[in-house]
Amino acid sequence: MLPVDDRRPIGVFDSGVGGLTVVRALRAALPGEDVVYLGDTARVPYGSKSPRTVERYAVACQRFLLDRGVKLVLIACNTASAHALDALRDASPVPVIGAVEPGARAALAATRTGDIGVIGTLGTVRSGAYERALRAVRPDVRVSAMACPLLVPLAEEGWTDDDIARAVARRYLTQLFDADPAIDTLVLGCTHYPLLRGVLAATAAQVAHREVAIVDSAQAMAAATVALVGAPENRRTAPGRLDCFATDTSRLDELAPRFLGERPSGFELVDL
Amino acid sequence: MLPVDDRRPIGVFDSGVGGLTVVRALRAALPGEDVVYLGDTARVPYGSKSPRTVERYAVACQRFLLDRGVKLVLIACNTASAHALDALRDASPVPVIGAVEPGARAALAATRTGDIGVIGTLGTVRSGAYERALRAVRPDVRVSAMACPLLVPLAEEGWTDDDIARAVARRYLTQLFDADPAIDTLVLGCTHYPLLRGVLAATAAQVAHREVAIVDSAQAMAAATVALVGAPENRRTAPGRLDCFATDTSRLDELAPRFLGERPSGFELVDL
Repeated sequence: MLPVDDRRPIGVFDSGVGGLTVVRALRAALPGEDVVYLGDTARVPYGSKSPRTVERYAVACQRFLLDRGVKLVLIACNTASAHALDALRDASPVPVIGAVEPGARAALAATRTGDIGVIGTLGTVRSGAYERALRAVRPDVRVSAMACPLLVPLAEEGWTDDDIARAVARRYLTQLFDADPAIDTLVLGCTHYPLLRGVLAATAAQVAHREVAIVDSAQAMAAATVALVGAPENRRTAPGRLDCFATDTSRLDELAPRFLGERPSGFELVDL
Repeated sequence: MLPVDDRRPIGVFDSGVGGLTVVRALRAALPGEDVVYLGDTARVPYGSKSPRTVERYAVACQRFLLDRGVKLVLIACNTASAHALDALRDASPVPVIGAVEPGARAALAATRTGDIGVIGTLGTVRSGAYERALRAVRPDVRVSAMACPLLVPLAEEGWTDDDIARAVARRYLTQLFDADPAIDTLVLGCTHYPLLRGVLAATAAQVAHREVAIVDSAQAMAAATVALVGAPENRRTAPGRLDCFATDTSRLDELAPRFLGERPSGFELVDL
């Protein structure tokens, strides 16, 4: 547990803008905290890249945040969490929270059947990181994972609640529930997916013919952060600063508000 | 025109695997030529990145090909052609063929109304490169362009001829033809799009209520190469070598055959 009077900012990074859904959940949970966000938008997406490449990029992102004096690093990218968590923890003098462990813990708390579905990028799914994290706590859990490459561009286009979004969700989730019809908990294992939460929850319920619990890794990461820095009632209430950095500024004005839920004051361009 | 007995290979690069559609068209047109292909798959996609970033990456790709002794460089990436053609020509002692100029010339040859539609990545569309190339030859042409971010993942998933592909094509092309109902020629301004040629042609005809000429920039680049190196009947007929390199090997085994139309003998991993 970090000291309550530690005024250093919380560092958050992602391969792009998707991690702003984590910042949104974090600022809702801990409004007084200062946050430094880095989106590695020049090299987005990490989801289709190899583990070695992702690790190299993630370590560079974390170094940038550490140089800004953060007290804590949040890896707001499931792919980077899947491939680079150990390397990032080895290289950091402050605590590092990944996306996978909090989401896995939330899924284990939600499931009754012990059958968990995970959707994410190709990199996250191939890594098997959720299976490992889930089985480390509960070895008998059944995990089915599916890569869903169309969901990120759907979220970025803002096509989040229409016939195309529903058809794409139905195709992916039908395959997932075919693999294990007893799934009762679905982990949104990519920080873009909270924008599609409505259509994913509705489609999962249709495909499964019953309610399916939805685990949003952005909210799970915010909860893990509260556990580490302390509940907000013990902390200052003045709204914290949000400083945003990116390695490429293309399309940020359009996309960032969609993921953050508010308009950021601006992005500073940095070269890593 | 290059000498007919110049046995040096032709260099082709793209941000990823999409440029293999250009290699496919090139090998169909000039089967005796040796080809060196580089996919910058670690940094794919270029389409959402800023011009400065794309130029930096493209120059590094070209340098790799020049170091392999190529006699000609094909920029099999519309985004890199849009942002970096001048920089690449300045940095090359051998001829450089971009994707935009050949596609623009083919579109001008095809149109009767003088109304041309262009679809491509966000980067290609934002650059205005097709408008400039088209208007440089024919100043009175009317050009409407539309970014279609979902088409690349559709092509990569292999969802190229189904209800989702048709719904996505219909949404994009309806917006495009709303902007100019007199469009009679559609440029596929991204090297992924030839895989969706069937659904794009059919949907364009439905939306326009008449045939629409389809210009495939991969075929246009192959034709421009023939014009520079000479027709194949003057050349050796033994099948040329194809050597493939990539900056990241993730998913290449699955994707490359889909774009190349045959299985490449393998990709060598390189770091630029």
